[in-house]
Amino acid sequence: MENETRQLLEKLSNKEISVDEVLLKLKLKPFEDIGYAQVDTHRALRQGVAEVIYGAGKTPKQIIGIGKTMLENGEPNILITRLSKESADEIKAELPLEYIEQARIGIIGKRANADGLGIVVVATGGTSDIPVAEEAAVTAEMFGNEVVRLYDVGVAGLHRLLSKLDVVMNASVIIAIAGMEGALASVIGGLADCPVIAVPTSVGYGASFNGLSALLSMLNSCASGVSVVNIDNGFGAGYLAHMINHMSPKTDV
Amino acid sequence: MENETRQLLEKLSNKEISVDEVLLKLKLKPFEDIGYAQVDTHRALRQGVAEVIYGAGKTPKQIIGIGKTMLENGEPNILITRLSKESADEIKAELPLEYIEQARIGIIGKRANADGLGIVVVATGGTSDIPVAEEAAVTAEMFGNEVVRLYDVGVAGLHRLLSKLDVVMNASVIIAIAGMEGALASVIGGLADCPVIAVPTSVGYGASFNGLSALLSMLNSCASGVSVVNIDNGFGAGYLAHMINHMSPKTDV
Amino acid sequence: MENETRQLLEKLSNKEISVDEVLLKLKLKPFEDIGYAQVDTHRALRQGVAEVIYGAGKTPKQIIGIGKTMLENGEPNILITRLSKESADEIKAELPLEYIEQARIGIIGKRANADGLGIVVVATGGTSDIPVAEEAAVTAEMFGNEVVRLYDVGVAGLHRLLSKLDVVMNASVIIAIAGMEGALASVIGGLADCPVIAVPTSVGYGASFNGLSALLSMLNSCASGVSVVNIDNGFGAGYLAHMINHMSPKTDV
Amino acid sequence: MENETRQLLEKLSNKEISVDEVLLKLKLKPFEDIGYAQVDTHRALRQGVAEVIYGAGKTPKQIIGIGKTMLENGEPNILITRLSKESADEIKAELPLEYIEQARIGIIGKRANADGLGIVVVATGGTSDIPVAEEAAVTAEMFGNEVVRLYDVGVAGLHRLLSKLDVVMNASVIIAIAGMEGALASVIGGLADCPVIAVPTSVGYGASFNGLSALLSMLNSCASGVSVVNIDNGFGAGYLAHMINHMSPKTDV
Amino acid sequence: MENETRQLLEKLSNKEISVDEVLLKLKLKPFEDIGYAQVDTHRALRQGVAEVIYGAGKTPKQIIGIGKTMLENGEPNILITRLSKESADEIKAELPLEYIEQARIGIIGKRANADGLGIVVVATGGTSDIPVAEEAAVTAEMFGNEVVRLYDVGVAGLHRLLSKLDVVMNASVIIAIAGMEGALASVIGGLADCPVIAVPTSVGYGASFNGLSALLSMLNSCASGVSVVNIDNGFGAGYLAHMINHMSPKTDV
Amino acid sequence: MENETRQLLEKLSNKEISVDEVLLKLKLKPFEDIGYAQVDTHRALRQGVAEVIYGAGKTPKQIIGIGKTMLENGEPNILITRLSKESADEIKAELPLEYIEQARIGIIGKRANADGLGIVVVATGGTSDIPVAEEAAVTAEMFGNEVVRLYDVGVAGLHRLLSKLDVVMNASVIIAIAGMEGALASVIGGLADCPVIAVPTSVGYGASFNGLSALLSMLNSCASGVSVVNIDNGFGAGYLAHMINHMSPKTDV
Amino acid sequence: MENETRQLLEKLSNKEISVDEVLLKLKLKPFEDIGYAQVDTHRALRQGVAEVIYGAGKTPKQIIGIGKTMLENGEPNILITRLSKESADEIKAELPLEYIEQARIGIIGKRANADGLGIVVVATGGTSDIPVAEEAAVTAEMFGNEVVRLYDVGVAGLHRLLSKLDVVMNASVIIAIAGMEGALASVIGGLADCPVIAVPTSVGYGASFNGLSALLSMLNSCASGVSVVNIDNGFGAGYLAHMINHMSPKTDV
Amino acid sequence: MENETRQLLEKLSNKEISVDEVLLKLKLKPFEDIGYAQVDTHRALRQGVAEVIYGAGKTPKQIIGIGKTMLENGEPNILITRLSKESADEIKAELPLEYIEQARIGIIGKRANADGLGIVVVATGGTSDIPVAEEAAVTAEMFGNEVVRLYDVGVAGLHRLLSKLDVVMNASVIIAIAGMEGALASVIGGLADCPVIAVPTSVGYGASFNGLSALLSMLNSCASGVSVVNIDNGFGAGYLAHMINHMSPKTDV
Repeated sequence: MENETRQLLEKLSNKEISVDEVLLKLKLKPFEDIGYAQVDTHRALRQGVAEVIYGAGKTPKQIIGIGKTMLENGEPNILITRLSKESADEIKAELPLEYIEQARIGIIGKRANADGLGIVVVATGGTSDIPVAEEAAVTAEMFGNEVVRLYDVGVAGLHRLLSKLDVVMNASVIIAIAGMEGALASVIGGLADCPVIAVPTSVGYGASFNGLSALLSMLNSCASGVSVVNIDNGFGAGYLAHMINHMSPKTDV
Repeated sequence: MENETRQLLEKLSNKEISVDEVLLKLKLKPFEDIGYAQVDTHRALRQGVAEVIYGAGKTPKQIIGIGKTMLENGEPNILITRLSKESADEIKAELPLEYIEQARIGIIGKRANADGLGIVVVATGGTSDIPVAEEAAVTAEMFGNEVVRLYDVGVAGLHRLLSKLDVVMNASVIIAIAGMEGALASVIGGLADCPVIAVPTSVGYGASFNGLSALLSMLNSCASGVSVVNIDNGFGAGYLAHMINHMSPKTDV
Repeated sequence: MENETRQLLEKLSNKEISVDEVLLKLKLKPFEDIGYAQVDTHRALRQGVAEVIYGAGKTPKQIIGIGKTMLENGEPNILITRLSKESADEIKAELPLEYIEQARIGIIGKRANADGLGIVVVATGGTSDIPVAEEAAVTAEMFGNEVVRLYDVGVAGLHRLLSKLDVVMNASVIIAIAGMEGALASVIGGLADCPVIAVPTSVGYGASFNGLSALLSMLNSCASGVSVVNIDNGFGAGYLAHMINHMSPKTDV
Repeated sequence: MENETRQLLEKLSNKEISVDEVLLKLKLKPFEDIGYAQVDTHRALRQGVAEVIYGAGKTPKQIIGIGKTMLENGEPNILITRLSKESADEIKAELPLEYIEQARIGIIGKRANADGLGIVVVATGGTSDIPVAEEAAVTAEMFGNEVVRLYDVGVAGLHRLLSKLDVVMNASVIIAIAGMEGALASVIGGLADCPVIAVPTSVGYGASFNGLSALLSMLNSCASGVSVVNIDNGFGAGYLAHMINHMSPKTDV
Repeated sequence: MENETRQLLEKLSNKEISVDEVLLKLKLKPFEDIGYAQVDTHRALRQGVAEVIYGAGKTPKQIIGIGKTMLENGEPNILITRLSKESADEIKAELPLEYIEQARIGIIGKRANADGLGIVVVATGGTSDIPVAEEAAVTAEMFGNEVVRLYDVGVAGLHRLLSKLDVVMNASVIIAIAGMEGALASVIGGLADCPVIAVPTSVGYGASFNGLSALLSMLNSCASGVSVVNIDNGFGAGYLAHMINHMSPKTDV
Repeated sequence: MENETRQLLEKLSNKEISVDEVLLKLKLKPFEDIGYAQVDTHRALRQGVAEVIYGAGKTPKQIIGIGKTMLENGEPNILITRLSKESADEIKAELPLEYIEQARIGIIGKRANADGLGIVVVATGGTSDIPVAEEAAVTAEMFGNEVVRLYDVGVAGLHRLLSKLDVVMNASVIIAIAGMEGALASVIGGLADCPVIAVPTSVGYGASFNGLSALLSMLNSCASGVSVVNIDNGFGAGYLAHMINHMSPKTDV
Repeated sequence: MENETRQLLEKLSNKEISVDEVLLKLKLKPFEDIGYAQVDTHRALRQGVAEVIYGAGKTPKQIIGIGKTMLENGEPNILITRLSKESADEIKAELPLEYIEQARIGIIGKRANADGLGIVVVATGGTSDIPVAEEAAVTAEMFGNEVVRLYDVGVAGLHRLLSKLDVVMNASVIIAIAGMEGALASVIGGLADCPVIAVPTSVGYGASFNGLSALLSMLNSCASGVSVVNIDNGFGAGYLAHMINHMSPKTDV
Repeated sequence: MENETRQLLEKLSNKEISVDEVLLKLKLKPFEDIGYAQVDTHRALRQGVAEVIYGAGKTPKQIIGIGKTMLENGEPNILITRLSKESADEIKAELPLEYIEQARIGIIGKRANADGLGIVVVATGGTSDIPVAEEAAVTAEMFGNEVVRLYDVGVAGLHRLLSKLDVVMNASVIIAIAGMEGALASVIGGLADCPVIAVPTSVGYGASFNGLSALLSMLNSCASGVSVVNIDNGFGAGYLAHMINHMSPKTDV
């Protein structure tokens, strides 16, 4: 940013550009300059990977419109979350969309190469948690992460998880997804020595209160290194896992 | 009961007794006849073991009064729960009370012999859960059960529990006590093949909401054979464990 | 387990087997050895009775697949809970399924003989609680328990329950099922001298908050010997009743 | 009111009074005319009985001030609720106060004669509910009702209540007071054929959530004729019982 | 009751009947004798008026069956609450049912004559509360009460209520029905000098949380003489109003 | 701001200033330029009136430090909210503080002249709400508003409020403060034709749940023109009332 | 009001009218006289602008009836909120209705001229909040306010809001509408120096609990000048904004 | 692990060790072998850094005991969280403890060198959040991270945060700590492109419900890369930040 502004000012100093032109440019893009305002979707993601559209509550037409604008602006890779099959079918007529039904995700463009620090493990307590898990897994893959899926390894049958202990021990980041009592996050948090992202799901009935039980469990985990995202928020977990799995030394600007 | 009523009616049929006398007797003690009205404490417990006084909200004087009445009525063994040290000291001046501070329990008389089907295991997630655990353990012991304590075996350090797997596998009944995320009940429930009584505790902070988190976790356990009692209710768990550990074939009356 | 491992080590000591072979075996089945990893369904149940599939959130195809695998592996008796009529109809085309609509349970194979310590009584507060009650009753029957049903004996018409007092007094285990104010568990808990498993139901309206009222009531029961399972969890109650009704002296392995 | 206004207007019509005077009178006391604005305490109670001061959050000085004003205005009987012993002692130095510690009630003046339709029964589940019960009982007595106390008749020991069935059956109004699971209201509601006022109390621990459990239970009672007041609101129940116990034919004004 | 049992015993004393016959009769109807067990529906109502069937969760066939049994047993008047139009149509084919759609109530037989102490006023805050109000009003009418309806007199337009002040002041009992902020109960409670039964409704949106807001408001009313029933429980309020409006001096049995 | 930046750029264009100097200035104060970053307290208030320090959770020393800095920076008028008497006494030793105990407010400097559009009415349901009311009233006065207090005009004694109708009708803004059922806001909102700021208080017991009941009531008010601030937030209401009472035509910058 | 009553009384004094006639008039419209009883809809709005019908829970026929009565009574402008498209279509057949689908508002008559103090800004966090925003915006416009819409300026992409800072800084009143974490209100409250009306919406999933998360956030805003209305209550915010934007000096009556 | 076991087996194969010795070793430390069972505190942390003792609910004596054992076992660095000043003083008499009062942390040994990928930024909304922030900051420093503190940068005064934008943009991990509305996490999450760990605090009053408001806000953040830990859990955030700031490429074992 500094460079761009400096060039602008130097041009002005050299009278190659007028005061009004500089003023207009500073006014038009005051935030693009400082590096966090490039994208216009609901989430500010890092450049060079893919843009994300939150599909829930948007009509197919709106999504098509946003998608076309992005493509025209040179953004080749787009991820659309919470996308229904019906919307996907309608969008496919206009855009080169790939639809992954289980994850309710639509993809335009191609997945990034897996270039993370290690493996992102996505574990679930039961089979009903798989749609949330797939949202997480596909998101992580799209942004360039190798993903290993450990499904249906809930703590009530501990042997299932323990028989995969090597996978757990070797993960770079683990996404632990569970409804009902949500104990999976604590058990994995106690076994692993990497960051664990806990995702409570609304799977369950009665006193699960649509995910509240799992949410509270995970927040109260006494294992270190566990943090929690919103109920059923597979995308959020997948994206955060990607960030952690791509950590690199920071150098000052 | 049927016998007693039959005798009454036969006496009437034989004119050994008047209609009014029968009427009065039927009216005065309709429920004494059927055998569940012998005790006068807050909990209807089985005869021959010990009576229980819930000490919370009772003054030392009230407890002394109740205790003396019981002793006079021939009840030699009394268990007083939720008893503060101060109250215990005051009661000791009048009654032969043994006080177990950690369990907040007072005992008059002697513990029953351990004659259950097997061992009652009392497990806790952390050290802060021990007071509740001791309330459960001492209760079970008082009523005649061998108790094995497994303290501080929370799921965030799973090896602690797994290293005691033989104890868990050999238990007759297990009382799983935990605050925070309360996952212990599910993990034990998945490992053991005996009834598990889960006791959520108010141990924790923040989103533990005074035991709500552990309570919901335990209610949502996907392990079979797990049931739950009130938050911090060590006595209830200990007494239920005693009942289960003394199951015997029922024969019709 | 010890025996099996000892034999392995002795073979190694005798050079009948290589270090690598032992290492592989120890790695491949570390938990099968210790006795709790035989079943692969969502609930770890005791051998020799029946396996359980939790039907909710599984497609008919998935259930058929799991069922076929079980049958092929020599498991003749299978219980499928929370099974819709539509799924049952589809499954019947491929497997010898018996469907009990009121209990939403499917059964493959045959019920175990009733060989428990005594009778499991299943009581409900109202008629609307019957589906949950049938889930409990059929589960208990399937695993080998004699069940007596006491339906619509809610506490607002106490005579209904009191007229069945002999049934209550003679039970081995009682499952008390109620929605709304859930007082049935306390009243039965005060009358009976056997373990009472309380099942809150979502029956009610307004301030019943989908079963929360009954749940809290039951957790706060001042009757001894009462524990609680999740709202509407008939299966859990039925299975736990079975465990308690089949208690026997534990001998060390 | 109509009469008073008519007289005013007739005086105006007869020119015995000016337009401005009528205007002023209509403006100054628009509501006194209609009969419900005589008292100035926090609760609008019926004349001729006693005035009530809600003592919580008022300083002894404030209570003395209000009390003196009332006495000076000719109100001989005053009831002060939620009054601490300390405040009562201070007030006694200035006013002829009788203090009933268990009920936390102060009385100036004398109790009304018991002239209701019948007996007000005040029943509690346990001994810890007695302070709330005494607030209800003393209130009802103060306003002129015969009160019978049935304490410690909780449903977990049903025989205690059933042995007093004649008292329950003969009541004019019953106040059912209980904490924990609050089932007393439903059971009494099912036995009695008079109005039942349910008072949940904050007695309990854990999942009683300071009276929430009992409150929800009572609101969900399936017995007819049961209504509920706020947690620990003994005064409200006592006053309402008084109103019901003094019902009489209404004649149009 | 006493009479019936006395006759039985006298017959036995006269040897007109055997001991076994008496025993059987006493066993079969042990509670009919003591006066509260005559009806077999979900609510124990007073004789001579009408029986009530709670229609929710019952099939038309079940209701027809229960209704026919009642009619055969000589009960001419039946009230069915929470009855859908579809069920009513089906029942009409078999029974002489009158259906009041707005109140969701079905009636067999005829309304009792209005013979209460005075008038039952049914007031609502808004028009959306009318179905609950009609359930209350029709119930009260069915049992023999004159009902005056004051609909849409919510406190946000206080003049609407104040213009009906004479109706409020002359009521024998008032049922105050409101959703949203539920303030109607407090305002009426402050104006009237008769018992007020508050019925919170689920009318509202957002932070009304399906009636919770109105429920809490009504429970916290600082007006004296106000009690509360469950959210949307028009029947309960109507029946309790009937009880209060028919209070009469109690004489000992 | 535009002017300032334009001048900067023109200087650069005229080579009166270097590129680096411009760059530094643009970097150092990017937000001071746009006019909202002048104050450094926790609340961004309008200049020329008074600065506010939220006293809760700050030590007397911290408050003295902040206060001295403000005074040194030429801010003569300071309002300190939620200030305990102990802290005030300590601060007084160092700063010219006036302490208003009932409102828990400390003032340095002088109150602004009352120059609002009209009168701010502060009304409470009961006497216990007065501390919150005084926080609101003193805040409004400090910022230059004429305040009329209407205390203890709760809806259960409606005549108290109606007798002050002229005050209510003539207000410019009304702050309605109430605990328990919080109905005051709705009733005032229905009577007045000015904005009403509702402040729920934590006054009450039992099901008031520390102000939750009043909060929900006020949020669900069906009167128009009512909005709500946090429980017990007298300052927030007083400040907002001040803003509304000082509305004036906006002219574009 | 005084004038009207004075004229009445003077006529009586002059015997131009009888006592009974005056009495009747005073009785028939006791509250019209004092100025707050002119409208008969659910909300008491100011004269001369438009009347409001809350459409939810009203049938098209009811709305047509109310509308016709209003038109006949000379009210030319009517606003109908929460109106479904189906109802609107049916109403259009009978009344000259304009329907604004996105806002779910129907309008009869014409919008008032924008004559407020300044601009009402309606800002939303996301696109899903737009229906609530349009309800607010159309309401404000209908009553005579210039509205500027700032949609999709949620705090997770702060540049979107900051790039519109001039709009925010120049507003007379701001309506901040957001679901999920509801942080928009605090950020705008910190930037603007005008009253901010916060509207939480039910947009979100999981732990947004249907708007509870946004509601609590907004109530806890530490920005000054922020108040909150019910979840999704666009109308309430729009009407309050109108009131604030039309503030003018109050002169005594 | 494999190596150690292999060596054991090879020794057995070479008869350097007996079968029983191997069996005992395998039995005694079955989990130490696989690398996650080395520590015996409540949290399983990585070796080589420091062990952690959760001080809450432990007596000084217990902490001294645990500490001495650790030191004897060669663990030179110990972190004790939630340690009161009183306990710290008592411990200091026996162990070389450094106590950091604001963070409520005790340290034995020395802080690790800061060797992370970059800087951990700890930001708070207000000054009252600083104790939680210091717990996070000191934890991160102890484990070897450079920490920059940004305190009192709450969103209601956005300029405070924006003036530190360079710090935010350059962070490796950010811990965002806030009570009340908890909006800080969303705003920072939208500005930064690194993982953000949100810590809700119990700072606030009224509808903050002891941190619930901030917790829900943070869970619902629409910024990507944000996850949440328990209310007031500074340690958890600091430790997780350390893990993320020390991410490195994983290589398979």
